[in-house]
Amino acid sequence: MATLGLIEYAQAGPEVRAVYDEIMAVRKADWINNFWKALAHDPVSLRRTWESIKQVMVPGELDHLTKQMIYIAVSATNQCGYCIASHTAAARKAGMTDAMFAELMAVVGMANETNRLASGYQVEIDDAFKK
Amino acid sequence: MATLGLIEYAQAGPEVRAVYDEIMAVRKADWINNFWKALAHDPVSLRRTWESIKQVMVPGELDHLTKQMIYIAVSATNQCGYCIASHTAAARKAGMTDAMFAELMAVVGMANETNRLASGYQVEIDDAFKK
Amino acid sequence: MATLGLIEYAQAGPEVRAVYDEIMAVRKADWINNFWKALAHDPVSLRRTWESIKQVMVPGELDHLTKQMIYIAVSATNQCGYCIASHTAAARKAGMTDAMFAELMAVVGMANETNRLASGYQVEIDDAFKK
Amino acid sequence: MATLGLIEYAQAGPEVRAVYDEIMAVRKADWINNFWKALAHDPVSLRRTWESIKQVMVPGELDHLTKQMIYIAVSATNQCGYCIASHTAAARKAGMTDAMFAELMAVVGMANETNRLASGYQVEIDDAFKK
Amino acid sequence: MATLGLIEYAQAGPEVRAVYDEIMAVRKADWINNFWKALAHDPVSLRRTWESIKQVMVPGELDHLTKQMIYIAVSATNQCGYCIASHTAAARKAGMTDAMFAELMAVVGMANETNRLASGYQVEIDDAFKK
Amino acid sequence: MATLGLIEYAQAGPEVRAVYDEIMAVRKADWINNFWKALAHDPVSLRRTWESIKQVMVPGELDHLTKQMIYIAVSATNQCGYCIASHTAAARKAGMTDAMFAELMAVVGMANETNRLASGYQVEIDDAFKK
Repeated sequence: MATLGLIEYAQAGPEVRAVYDEIMAVRKADWINNFWKALAHDPVSLRRTWESIKQVMVPGELDHLTKQMIYIAVSATNQCGYCIASHTAAARKAGMTDAMFAELMAVVGMANETNRLASGYQVEIDDAFKK
Repeated sequence: MATLGLIEYAQAGPEVRAVYDEIMAVRKADWINNFWKALAHDPVSLRRTWESIKQVMVPGELDHLTKQMIYIAVSATNQCGYCIASHTAAARKAGMTDAMFAELMAVVGMANETNRLASGYQVEIDDAFKK
Repeated sequence: MATLGLIEYAQAGPEVRAVYDEIMAVRKADWINNFWKALAHDPVSLRRTWESIKQVMVPGELDHLTKQMIYIAVSATNQCGYCIASHTAAARKAGMTDAMFAELMAVVGMANETNRLASGYQVEIDDAFKK
Repeated sequence: MATLGLIEYAQAGPEVRAVYDEIMAVRKADWINNFWKALAHDPVSLRRTWESIKQVMVPGELDHLTKQMIYIAVSATNQCGYCIASHTAAARKAGMTDAMFAELMAVVGMANETNRLASGYQVEIDDAFKK
Repeated sequence: MATLGLIEYAQAGPEVRAVYDEIMAVRKADWINNFWKALAHDPVSLRRTWESIKQVMVPGELDHLTKQMIYIAVSATNQCGYCIASHTAAARKAGMTDAMFAELMAVVGMANETNRLASGYQVEIDDAFKK
Repeated sequence: MATLGLIEYAQAGPEVRAVYDEIMAVRKADWINNFWKALAHDPVSLRRTWESIKQVMVPGELDHLTKQMIYIAVSATNQCGYCIASHTAAARKAGMTDAMFAELMAVVGMANETNRLASGYQVEIDDAFKK
């Protein structure tokens, strides 16, 4: 339960419904996940966040699946349970196999490890990386 | 400068040199970056970390460039200046263009934003994501 | 459930009861939330933490509600589910409306996004900000 | 220096200049800070980020200074050196006194402390906070 | 439940069983905790992670209990619920008393607080700490 | 340089000098590090933080060196450059050898890695760890 509760389609005003409709159309889905239903308490943020997500996640130089895996990498690093669950589902829908997920996790794990070795050992940036 | 200083090839013992030689061979490079020179104070960790990195970063279901970009995503999320610099350099060497980097950053930024909206609004995981 | 369980008023020793009494008096409440009941296993930390919270959260240059919203901002950034729930409740009690909460979340989200853009793009601090 | 370098006004294309002009107008300033000059490598992100910041930081239910202090709270929690410096400067410009900054820091510090006590003691959310 | 589910001993292939057998032997336990059963979907990561943990957690200059407490310190800082629970259990098995846990938490809390005071106040590293 | 600058002993008022004197006495040192000189802009926070640090870091069930190493573990996890530098210096003064530091870093690295594997694989807490 979100603190403010979730706004279902039936209760939603026209601004919120317009975003919900668009989300379902883009995702070829017939339901809205809780994230948007919570954010719908603030229709302006709902609209802005959806527009940003749509712009950012569209296939470009990076394909949609790669972008979903990057989303998982960030979410696992931040320990965001909701985002890990929702973006893992989205990545699977976009074609992520178990083997790809395993490799993704292995890289995320190592990066989190060596990030702390680099900071703990107080390693200075090599001049070659500053060019 | 690492607290313990950096161990250059000339000062290094045979275990450390063996890892340095392997790093340079794998990377087709003639130098070692500071991260490894700091870690070399602990030859056992140096060997283990290198073996792990080698295993994790080898192309598999995900290609090497995708893995380097995931590394950057984690490092930027953790604010690890050294790792951002070194893995951005590695990703560029592996073919990351400015446009790919820009898209990567856009996804990393959005993921960090929505991670906090999900937690702040206390959004519960949808049943559909638990299957 | 805390690993160590929760110490209820009835079981508590005099040092712990003294803190519980004070918390209830300051908050004009007739119950103690789980955070303090867990911390009560360590009466010295309980006392120190309560004294610090009391000193820090008292209205001063910033009013109490602003301080509670800053607490939420930190807790959402850290993904601390307990603290988000407890300080959101406290902030509402202090007068935070749904509209204020929505604006708070929007700022927290953007700050988490641009923090990573700044680090990922390796942006140097402007001289104008160093003065 | 950003990895990609900074795009100065003189070098910038029309889309970037349009954002720069708007930033300077809104802020009543005659210069652009490095964050935007780095992001300008990606004019689409530059535009989206600026539009979002403008929408989020405008005075509403929370005044501009409160929003800047929330930005500092998040940035200090995330250890983002650039953002701490830039938003501390912005908050001062908006009227934050030394005494206000000191109180802000005290709350940020305590929140980061108790966030970890809550997680480390594995404190469960009180039913009263779930309503 | 892990997204991929958990691999029980009965279903496991020989590589996974070999690791499970070793974990139970080293820990003098007759069961495997969920972390390993989830990771078992990737036998290579399972093996590598177990070998690393075994090497890192063996008593050396620091005893096993100290290492478990350091593990808790990191896990509480990162808000990793699973790791806090599992390593608190492991530390207790290794002799951590309630009083030791309380002191550990107090240090973790203060460190998280002063980390943000240091960053928020933009404190420069003293020359004496750079030697 | 702290944003607010550093308050040297000569400029300090009597409340600040009293804390500085106590810090130097406890540490058997003839100088004050920058952290305290920055915090001195807020004599109340200076006093509270010092009292808390003194209480928390005093040898108890855990010895002083163990506490300093826990401080480093948290600081490296949070990427707090100042705190890593200052507490590494303090730990060395308290007897931390290079070999101890190396083991500390190895544990910190692994904990940061497995924290993300546990969250990314969405591992549920074993019943055995809830007792």
